[in-house]
Amino acid sequence: MALRAGWIGLGAMGAPMAMHLLRAGHPLAVWARRKEVMKPHVDAGARRCASPAEVAANADVVFTMVTATADSEAVALGEESIVEGARPGTVVVDMATVSPVATREIAARLKARDLEHLDAPVSGGPAGAAAATLAIMVGGRPEVFARVKPLLARLGRHVLHMGGHGAGQVTKLCNQVAQVVNVQGIAEAMLFAAVNGVDPAKVREALMGGFAASKMLELLGERMVDRTFDAGIPARLHHKDFGLVVELAHELGIAMPATALTAQQLAALMGHGWGTYDTSSLLRVLEAQSGVKPGG
Amino acid sequence: MALRAGWIGLGAMGAPMAMHLLRAGHPLAVWARRKEVMKPHVDAGARRCASPAEVAANADVVFTMVTATADSEAVALGEESIVEGARPGTVVVDMATVSPVATREIAARLKARDLEHLDAPVSGGPAGAAAATLAIMVGGRPEVFARVKPLLARLGRHVLHMGGHGAGQVTKLCNQVAQVVNVQGIAEAMLFAAVNGVDPAKVREALMGGFAASKMLELLGERMVDRTFDAGIPARLHHKDFGLVVELAHELGIAMPATALTAQQLAALMGHGWGTYDTSSLLRVLEAQSGVKPGG
Repeated sequence: MALRAGWIGLGAMGAPMAMHLLRAGHPLAVWARRKEVMKPHVDAGARRCASPAEVAANADVVFTMVTATADSEAVALGEESIVEGARPGTVVVDMATVSPVATREIAARLKARDLEHLDAPVSGGPAGAAAATLAIMVGGRPEVFARVKPLLARLGRHVLHMGGHGAGQVTKLCNQVAQVVNVQGIAEAMLFAAVNGVDPAKVREALMGGFAASKMLELLGERMVDRTFDAGIPARLHHKDFGLVVELAHELGIAMPATALTAQQLAALMGHGWGTYDTSSLLRVLEAQSGVKPGG
Repeated sequence: MALRAGWIGLGAMGAPMAMHLLRAGHPLAVWARRKEVMKPHVDAGARRCASPAEVAANADVVFTMVTATADSEAVALGEESIVEGARPGTVVVDMATVSPVATREIAARLKARDLEHLDAPVSGGPAGAAAATLAIMVGGRPEVFARVKPLLARLGRHVLHMGGHGAGQVTKLCNQVAQVVNVQGIAEAMLFAAVNGVDPAKVREALMGGFAASKMLELLGERMVDRTFDAGIPARLHHKDFGLVVELAHELGIAMPATALTAQQLAALMGHGWGTYDTSSLLRVLEAQSGVKPGG
């Protein structure tokens, strides 16, 4: 019989992901802070729950996809939370990007209640969630991963077990560092081209043929050229993730200078009120910093 | 009749490039500072010259591929240089990466002697030079570009006219900025993974499936994982190029903070004596800065 799934958090990412499980034939129990967002899933046959505890009481595997570390902790361990409703052996899968340190603590506290935990953050954005083509980076016990993997395979194309508790979160943060530092470099190259009077569109095309080629140059480089900063990944999520990395690097005592600098540029971006815009807006931050008119 | 080519500078890049022109049937005149490096070309039928002036006297198009801005200036305009031997209408094509500002000055001084100039720096490294798959970014007059393009097409796969004098150099510097800032971000991600106890090889594999995917993650990320820092692009060339960008950004009055920071990391790399190693050595700089043992 199909495993019973629970889903907590039905935002731009969670809503399509939960629907994939329902359509794959898994009985689904749902809860979200905003009651109205549950309607499409309830209409499609999901059980509407009054709390995370009720979700857990009706599921073998409970997925959580909420915004911040504090939210993940609250739905797992707070009032009317998963621990209040779950039977021993239930697996909690946190698909949000949260602190690896907090993840290890949550896993330990759930283990003390005989519950299992996986951290399984994703890359690919709302488009990847809708198309079920996400990259999913998983940390936790291998045998628990094996049990949950068929469900994760409904949500993404690359489902990889990275190591013990927190390893999925560490991998996701590595992804954010490599991705957004690259965007910062691309933004500086685009500014340099424009100010020197060379067409950024041509530069992007030339660079795609060489060693500077990247997914970000292809996608966000194009948005910088077209100046379509309103589509894509909200920069506030990268701002949040860079806060996690910088904090952890500080605790670990390792220098990550370009990460710290990019975190500052993302903070400046937030200061401009561009947090809901795409991270290609890092170009606009540079323009503002240098008093350069849009487009050079 | 095939245009007569001249080639000045037969290093790791210039030697295979000149050979491609010879094999394509162009009469070739060569000169290099170190006489012994001319032997393969002379054995294959090239004319051995005693100076850049003699090369210019025997060519319709003279290619220069020397290390630094001062070298490009010296072979074009110094003693026994191209201007001493060239007839009016001869085209000088500078394929080295040099200052866009110096490029515009050289072009103007050649124009005063009725000589044409193109800046045509390349991306792709010695492997791209050997396989004739380079990306070639060209600045200069369109009609001169059109005349020389068939020869450039023997050397690379992507031959793009970017704009007026210096536009090729600006594009190449944009390429270096986007490429090496990306390498710095990848190095920080790899350090973060290792110190957190997550296998960098697995992290690289996971990241190649998402938005952090890039040519540099594929190639230099692999070298960081394998710790094969001795193959590939010598970091001293990136150090040189970042000096050019930072200087020009300073003159233009534009902020390129991640570029400046990466220039500092490349300077630290040079300080460690790793300038002849691959730029993936930026990982080792981070390890040294944080007192992290190799591989975490």
